[in-house]
Amino acid sequence: MAGNTFGQAFRVTTWGESHGKALGVVIDGCPPRLPLAEPDIQEALDRRRPQGAASSTPRREPDKVEILSGVFEGRTTGTPILLIIYNKDVDSRAYKAIKDVFRPGHGDITYQKKYGMRDYRGGGRASGRETVARVAAGGVARTVLEQDGIKVRAYTFELAGIRVQQVDLEAVNMNPFFAPDLDAAERMGERIREIKASGDSAGGIVEVLVEGCPPGLGEPVFDKLDADLAKGLMSIGAVKAVEIGVGLGAARLLGSECNDEIMPKGFVTNRSGGILAGISNGDEIVVRAAVKPIPSIEIEQKTIDIHSRPTTISVKGRHDVSAIPRIVPVCEAMVRLVIADHLLRQKAL
Amino acid sequence: MAGNTFGQAFRVTTWGESHGKALGVVIDGCPPRLPLAEPDIQEALDRRRPQGAASSTPRREPDKVEILSGVFEGRTTGTPILLIIYNKDVDSRAYKAIKDVFRPGHGDITYQKKYGMRDYRGGGRASGRETVARVAAGGVARTVLEQDGIKVRAYTFELAGIRVQQVDLEAVNMNPFFAPDLDAAERMGERIREIKASGDSAGGIVEVLVEGCPPGLGEPVFDKLDADLAKGLMSIGAVKAVEIGVGLGAARLLGSECNDEIMPKGFVTNRSGGILAGISNGDEIVVRAAVKPIPSIEIEQKTIDIHSRPTTISVKGRHDVSAIPRIVPVCEAMVRLVIADHLLRQKAL
Amino acid sequence: MAGNTFGQAFRVTTWGESHGKALGVVIDGCPPRLPLAEPDIQEALDRRRPQGAASSTPRREPDKVEILSGVFEGRTTGTPILLIIYNKDVDSRAYKAIKDVFRPGHGDITYQKKYGMRDYRGGGRASGRETVARVAAGGVARTVLEQDGIKVRAYTFELAGIRVQQVDLEAVNMNPFFAPDLDAAERMGERIREIKASGDSAGGIVEVLVEGCPPGLGEPVFDKLDADLAKGLMSIGAVKAVEIGVGLGAARLLGSECNDEIMPKGFVTNRSGGILAGISNGDEIVVRAAVKPIPSIEIEQKTIDIHSRPTTISVKGRHDVSAIPRIVPVCEAMVRLVIADHLLRQKAL
Amino acid sequence: MAGNTFGQAFRVTTWGESHGKALGVVIDGCPPRLPLAEPDIQEALDRRRPQGAASSTPRREPDKVEILSGVFEGRTTGTPILLIIYNKDVDSRAYKAIKDVFRPGHGDITYQKKYGMRDYRGGGRASGRETVARVAAGGVARTVLEQDGIKVRAYTFELAGIRVQQVDLEAVNMNPFFAPDLDAAERMGERIREIKASGDSAGGIVEVLVEGCPPGLGEPVFDKLDADLAKGLMSIGAVKAVEIGVGLGAARLLGSECNDEIMPKGFVTNRSGGILAGISNGDEIVVRAAVKPIPSIEIEQKTIDIHSRPTTISVKGRHDVSAIPRIVPVCEAMVRLVIADHLLRQKAL
Repeated sequence: MAGNTFGQAFRVTTWGESHGKALGVVIDGCPPRLPLAEPDIQEALDRRRPQGAASSTPRREPDKVEILSGVFEGRTTGTPILLIIYNKDVDSRAYKAIKDVFRPGHGDITYQKKYGMRDYRGGGRASGRETVARVAAGGVARTVLEQDGIKVRAYTFELAGIRVQQVDLEAVNMNPFFAPDLDAAERMGERIREIKASGDSAGGIVEVLVEGCPPGLGEPVFDKLDADLAKGLMSIGAVKAVEIGVGLGAARLLGSECNDEIMPKGFVTNRSGGILAGISNGDEIVVRAAVKPIPSIEIEQKTIDIHSRPTTISVKGRHDVSAIPRIVPVCEAMVRLVIADHLLRQKAL
Repeated sequence: MAGNTFGQAFRVTTWGESHGKALGVVIDGCPPRLPLAEPDIQEALDRRRPQGAASSTPRREPDKVEILSGVFEGRTTGTPILLIIYNKDVDSRAYKAIKDVFRPGHGDITYQKKYGMRDYRGGGRASGRETVARVAAGGVARTVLEQDGIKVRAYTFELAGIRVQQVDLEAVNMNPFFAPDLDAAERMGERIREIKASGDSAGGIVEVLVEGCPPGLGEPVFDKLDADLAKGLMSIGAVKAVEIGVGLGAARLLGSECNDEIMPKGFVTNRSGGILAGISNGDEIVVRAAVKPIPSIEIEQKTIDIHSRPTTISVKGRHDVSAIPRIVPVCEAMVRLVIADHLLRQKAL
Repeated sequence: MAGNTFGQAFRVTTWGESHGKALGVVIDGCPPRLPLAEPDIQEALDRRRPQGAASSTPRREPDKVEILSGVFEGRTTGTPILLIIYNKDVDSRAYKAIKDVFRPGHGDITYQKKYGMRDYRGGGRASGRETVARVAAGGVARTVLEQDGIKVRAYTFELAGIRVQQVDLEAVNMNPFFAPDLDAAERMGERIREIKASGDSAGGIVEVLVEGCPPGLGEPVFDKLDADLAKGLMSIGAVKAVEIGVGLGAARLLGSECNDEIMPKGFVTNRSGGILAGISNGDEIVVRAAVKPIPSIEIEQKTIDIHSRPTTISVKGRHDVSAIPRIVPVCEAMVRLVIADHLLRQKAL
Repeated sequence: MAGNTFGQAFRVTTWGESHGKALGVVIDGCPPRLPLAEPDIQEALDRRRPQGAASSTPRREPDKVEILSGVFEGRTTGTPILLIIYNKDVDSRAYKAIKDVFRPGHGDITYQKKYGMRDYRGGGRASGRETVARVAAGGVARTVLEQDGIKVRAYTFELAGIRVQQVDLEAVNMNPFFAPDLDAAERMGERIREIKASGDSAGGIVEVLVEGCPPGLGEPVFDKLDADLAKGLMSIGAVKAVEIGVGLGAARLLGSECNDEIMPKGFVTNRSGGILAGISNGDEIVVRAAVKPIPSIEIEQKTIDIHSRPTTISVKGRHDVSAIPRIVPVCEAMVRLVIADHLLRQKAL
């Protein structure tokens, strides 16, 4: 059944496969009269492109976005906005080899079981390339949020076991890992090169901050703000855990350590991550996503083919070593989609 | 805007407040001709009732469920099923004291800011009591899942810093903490009594297992099975993190440590937690929710009143010390709702 | 699949069967702080009760509505409002006779084919009694609309071939047919008595006016205001046609006869029925629903039983002769639900 | 708020403006493994192109559809299908004249009031050209329906006051009005030429037949099959009324004239139009849509400009004289979308 739509009031529907003709998104519910042009969207797409030691994909896509509808004379019209990114650098020959083999850790086997067939070229719809449409949509959401002074920033919190020691937002765009700590970024680079040399891959954690979010966003009881953030981030292929505020750590705290006391000028601490009972409390929203290592590795692994016969696989070539840093703008985009949606939903109150 | 509905094909809408006349749920989309009677639903409600050292709420509700529609001659008819649980033991006098004061860690302040008013009695809609409707709905979902041989089991994985050392499902109902490890349960009891004596509260982790889930459930790309599980569990008030399979641990694994190799007889390991690319792979589904400590504590905390004046609060009386174990059947119910919904969605393929 | 929910921002879900324990509705998305009490809702329910020559149902239900949630100290809280109407005067014995026979014109045969079973008592969920929940929900919608000065009025436009010659809203509640023309009402009474005497039943047309609707409501392209009005009215069991403005007559007009010219003070005519391109234009909204005759008649008809064997049926007893006038408040309620929903949706723009 | 999506299980979202770069649709929920290629979709688009006396639009669009996603090696994959039709013959100069003037009967004024701005070129999103995306989507729905042997056929039932005297489906594609009666078609041509000469425009009625629809489709109580058909057809810009079966005529029938008696071999008559209590009964589904005259006429009309100053307008040039016949494949497409959606929904039961 249909499952490619996200949001209620600010509603995005994505489409496209890794090696198809194009990928894109329809955005329905964007308020009218907002200034919007392709460069506003292109910026985040450019940040998603391969860069640094962790990214060695040979595919070099310009990822140029085009607006095909919903904008007139530089402003949104209130009607659906179609964003399209044509695939340019498609070479599917390499994938013939895995046509009949399931790569461990990939969706090859589950897509085959669900649909009775699959577009095996580059992972088809299950490819990380699908997120290009999310990032494009996030660019439009950013425009919506800016009207209300809301800023969303994502960065690498941990990569290959190396955690940042400080959060300096200025630093994020000054290193190829989008780390808010230049020292940590340097060590990440070293560690990633080692892992790459060994034919393996690495995971990490992305943190997303929302600044300027007004109190009151989130719809109890199921469409809580944190519930939708969890869904949005967990819907990104590589994510295996989502935390809000103290997150998993909440399990080991006492109530007196976990509660945020309240003073007339605001909350004393922010263990809640800016959300209480599913509703934003006006403080910074803090959410983290744990990212698993890229499953395509050179190290040989046991697997089966589509006839259930045992075989082995070693994914050669220049795959990314980690979904980080490319997943960072994707997480940022998903959080933007959630906040924009709830911002509009709250207006319908 | 509306936010009290969960699911697409098996769709539940809950209603009711802690100190209102009743709570309940409408279940729309339940297949016809399934055997269903009140005892099928009552069982899970009884497990949610206060028990053991962690639960010392003075409110003693029978929580008797009544089916008011959708069942005829002992079978579901395919039309909406209304389940109602009347509140019997309501005494709102104690809450007059907090009418004008925001309890730290509670939704008092965010409800007030969102809606410009709130039902302060027992937390109103933000109360944990709201989950009684989820548990009731889960009882119907269980009937749907049983038709396909799917079993969902939740248990305490960690409480107040004490983690289980084994998962013995037989043990779960043999101790008041729903722990699958009787030794751990005993130590949990001791620790909880200490925390209670100190006027504090404790958090923990709940794990949910899904056995017998067929491959193919989950709708890429946003309505992935893990995304909906994350939303479902995070929508429970006290939950601050959700993990699938290795979860947060994925961040520190290498690809060779995280991938599940595949053999003709199945996956060699289950780090994925039974879900690949958002679709069930036929293996056991494993998901965990981190639960924060109950925010109502006797230890005095700083807060403000509704006029933003500083004050302090010490929540006396007999609140639960931990949301565990009562949250265990709630997590179980939410996972059942997600799996039942996706089971039906897959049929529409 | 689930199909008992209507609306996006103001969302209602109904439940209950004719001879079950109760019927009701959950309303999710009602704005907070609106004054609401049971008498506000009861009024429309009382208008739906049997009255006049057309209504001779022997069932005498008080149809007392109770609010079980979502209201605190006389005001809505923004959380789901549960309205319940207990069935009091249930006597299912008479329906044993039609347990195995399909009544022509009724949903007996389609429910049986869809669900493989059916609650045959009083038509179960297919009964006109289901509309009691719609009327109750409409009472809440009226409160929402009143905040914006929007008034919805329904009346009988035609009954048993007798069409009203004038629309005098004062007259509507002065005759048992809810006709805005007392002369016509008298002739309706005569005609209905004749039809009743012959063991037959009659159809008619209901017209609904919306006064004070602001321009701008309606969401192109599918959720147009007229499209949602059409769905809302056609979802009432007995309705076979829906018209907006000139309606069916548009087919025979020329463009110069159908267009509404525009003057600075407003539209010169209102052939459009207050909706242009699916969006309200600020003029009165005018919509009509054609209602088929009650299918239960005393005149003998050919039918089959559940084993497909031929038989005949003559529905004795005191069924209504026409769905009019009881369907009038139902149409009014459905229009209110549509306008309230779109009023809130427009705020999310 | 978002309003450009139709359907639950087979879900389409359209986008694009009359004079934008392109129009198109995303189809989410199409079952996998169905054969699908561009010619399957192109056929209906070709039928929608200008033809015959009623169509004198000077715009000559090839309307070539391209599939950009969701199809692999000639078969659907179960992932979203993006169909795109690039606008080729766009000349917006003529519309500068109406930039500041509201055309009577058009959405110019309501779009302006709703959104505070509008894309005035060719009607923007309110243009009849928007339906090109619906027709394309209908081509995919046809493929879904064909798997179950369901056929949908639309034709002109009445044009400019001339009603067909017979329904000969063979004749439909043998005349430029898609009339199932060649004699009537000839008279339609004469009448249309007269109206055209007088600078006026004409309305009519489209009838749609569904053959081979299984019983059981439709979800009580709101998502009834007839309710969704009414919404789907009324969401087409020019439609002002929708009838099922006897439709408006039901108002004047007696119960004994309106009921369809039942025999072991089926229903004796089909006044119900194939739908009982909102569920298909296995008989032919018959639905009609009344279409208003094209509002753009040469005859001078009073109107206002965007500064509310009175003016007049005479729409010169070669507009269509009637939405018929071009709306015929649009109605056919909308009915296909509804039936395909409900066919899949019924599988989730």
